[in-house]
Amino acid sequence: MQAIEIDETAKTLRPCEMAEPEYGERDVLIDVVAAGINRADVMQRQGLYPNPHGGPNVPGLEVSGRIAAVGRAVHQWKVGDEVCALLSGGGYAEKVAVDAGHVLPVPAGVPLEDAAALPEVMCTVYSNVFMTANLRPGEWLLVHGGGSGIGTAAIQVARAFNAHVAVTAGSQEKLDAVRPLGVELAINYRTDDFVERMRDRTGDGADVILDVVGAKYLARNVEALAPSGRLVVIGLLGGRKAELDLNKLMGKRAAVIGTTLRARPDQEKASIVAEVTAEVWPLIESGRVAPTIHARLPLDEAARGQQMLEDSTSVGKVLLTLGS
Amino acid sequence: MQAIEIDETAKTLRPCEMAEPEYGERDVLIDVVAAGINRADVMQRQGLYPNPHGGPNVPGLEVSGRIAAVGRAVHQWKVGDEVCALLSGGGYAEKVAVDAGHVLPVPAGVPLEDAAALPEVMCTVYSNVFMTANLRPGEWLLVHGGGSGIGTAAIQVARAFNAHVAVTAGSQEKLDAVRPLGVELAINYRTDDFVERMRDRTGDGADVILDVVGAKYLARNVEALAPSGRLVVIGLLGGRKAELDLNKLMGKRAAVIGTTLRARPDQEKASIVAEVTAEVWPLIESGRVAPTIHARLPLDEAARGQQMLEDSTSVGKVLLTLGS
Repeated sequence: MQAIEIDETAKTLRPCEMAEPEYGERDVLIDVVAAGINRADVMQRQGLYPNPHGGPNVPGLEVSGRIAAVGRAVHQWKVGDEVCALLSGGGYAEKVAVDAGHVLPVPAGVPLEDAAALPEVMCTVYSNVFMTANLRPGEWLLVHGGGSGIGTAAIQVARAFNAHVAVTAGSQEKLDAVRPLGVELAINYRTDDFVERMRDRTGDGADVILDVVGAKYLARNVEALAPSGRLVVIGLLGGRKAELDLNKLMGKRAAVIGTTLRARPDQEKASIVAEVTAEVWPLIESGRVAPTIHARLPLDEAARGQQMLEDSTSVGKVLLTLGS
Repeated sequence: MQAIEIDETAKTLRPCEMAEPEYGERDVLIDVVAAGINRADVMQRQGLYPNPHGGPNVPGLEVSGRIAAVGRAVHQWKVGDEVCALLSGGGYAEKVAVDAGHVLPVPAGVPLEDAAALPEVMCTVYSNVFMTANLRPGEWLLVHGGGSGIGTAAIQVARAFNAHVAVTAGSQEKLDAVRPLGVELAINYRTDDFVERMRDRTGDGADVILDVVGAKYLARNVEALAPSGRLVVIGLLGGRKAELDLNKLMGKRAAVIGTTLRARPDQEKASIVAEVTAEVWPLIESGRVAPTIHARLPLDEAARGQQMLEDSTSVGKVLLTLGS
């Protein structure tokens, strides 16, 4: 089959031919129609993630497509079902094998191709903002990188659950693009101080912060938290180590939580997938939440797709399409 | 009435006469029989806590005694009831006024005087280890300062809920004293590395750490956490600022939480008191959990009582008694 492999020496992507993946008795094999590009894929290409499984190093944490085969122990899916899935890698390919518990139906009303934009962002947002940080109606969520795939999803899901949403982004264009999704406070981090802007608008600060910056923002994120606030760090674009003022944390009775979706055990991922199917899919089917798609490129333009994320000019997801 | 006041200049305690406290319509007035000494009282004397209310600066975060009067809106308590209570200060005195929602009954089987050892430690342990960090049966709790009032309470409550308990302390005598409370791993922090000892014993590390040290232990506490572990920092004996490695936190999907009981809003304290009465008091009444009392001193020896905590030689609580 056709796939995109990482050249670990040159740190580039190259199309290649490889054998179809084997699937176990609890797996399904999917004929891929589209694959989502994530920032983690870029980091994997750059050598910042070890190749988790050995073997061919094919990036790709989410796909949509049709089930081509099911393992002996799989009863909830059958050949031909239109699905999307959360992967631990391998999505930039014509076929991928995945734990049947990590597969979701395509929500009614969403084109099969576009469904590739959903699994990673929706599972990341729901598991972190709701399951881990327990965002409640009426609370304020601050999302750094409001224009990213995760940002555009977090805005919509939080609004659908009646929370208030603030975002940061690096350009007026991005802020204008995401405001219609339900953003109540749009902060240009190049010109404004998000701590001040949050305080001015909310009084107390953010109840939950979803952060991909890490070290560089740690002190200011703690500053921007409301009493009983929860800071969830899911990315380290601004470094990994920074000073934490525990006294400030105690004064606010606040929490700093670090998580990754990718490193979770299969069973935890399956729980997340089940909750997302139950809680988020109805919001998509009713039209309150929709995938935000910046671009669709053919599979062999994967390198250009990753470049779009690196340039940080996209709003929403970049998909690789394989035709259908 | 007799009370003990902080001389803010000399940073000492001195007996004094003062007016009885006024009580509001939602308060009760308590004839104090005994008052617990807490480390926060020592810090208040040292000037590290601002006097929260203005007026006379009387330390004391918990008492036991009899209700002497009730406000007009108080229906759940009546004059003569034997109770203990969680205070925001003022406990080193013959009488104290407190929100009726912060009052607990004396558990059956506990002498009225000894009940003064319960409110602060039990509310601190239950709110942090169970309500905030959600310690579950079969998980490992690591408690720093196993010989403290909080330590001796945490050990017993965690064991009663079928968790495993490890503690650190600075002497073999303390470790020997707390082992019978249910400690499965007793670590002398002067001679042993708690990170290594935890790893050797548990494989993964601690699921929950209850920490009073703060900055000095932050990196090693994160190191000692198991995947999905929760570090709850409730004291800063080892400083307030330290470097946090967010990448390590993410790799473990772990949380660093700072809290204080004292600074919580009244309504939150009342919720904690209600949960402690419902969940912990039955354990005390059945004999599975008991107050650990190191010494009982008359009120006018409050300075000597605080010195015992500063010397860090006590195991369990030091009480001030007022006769009854």
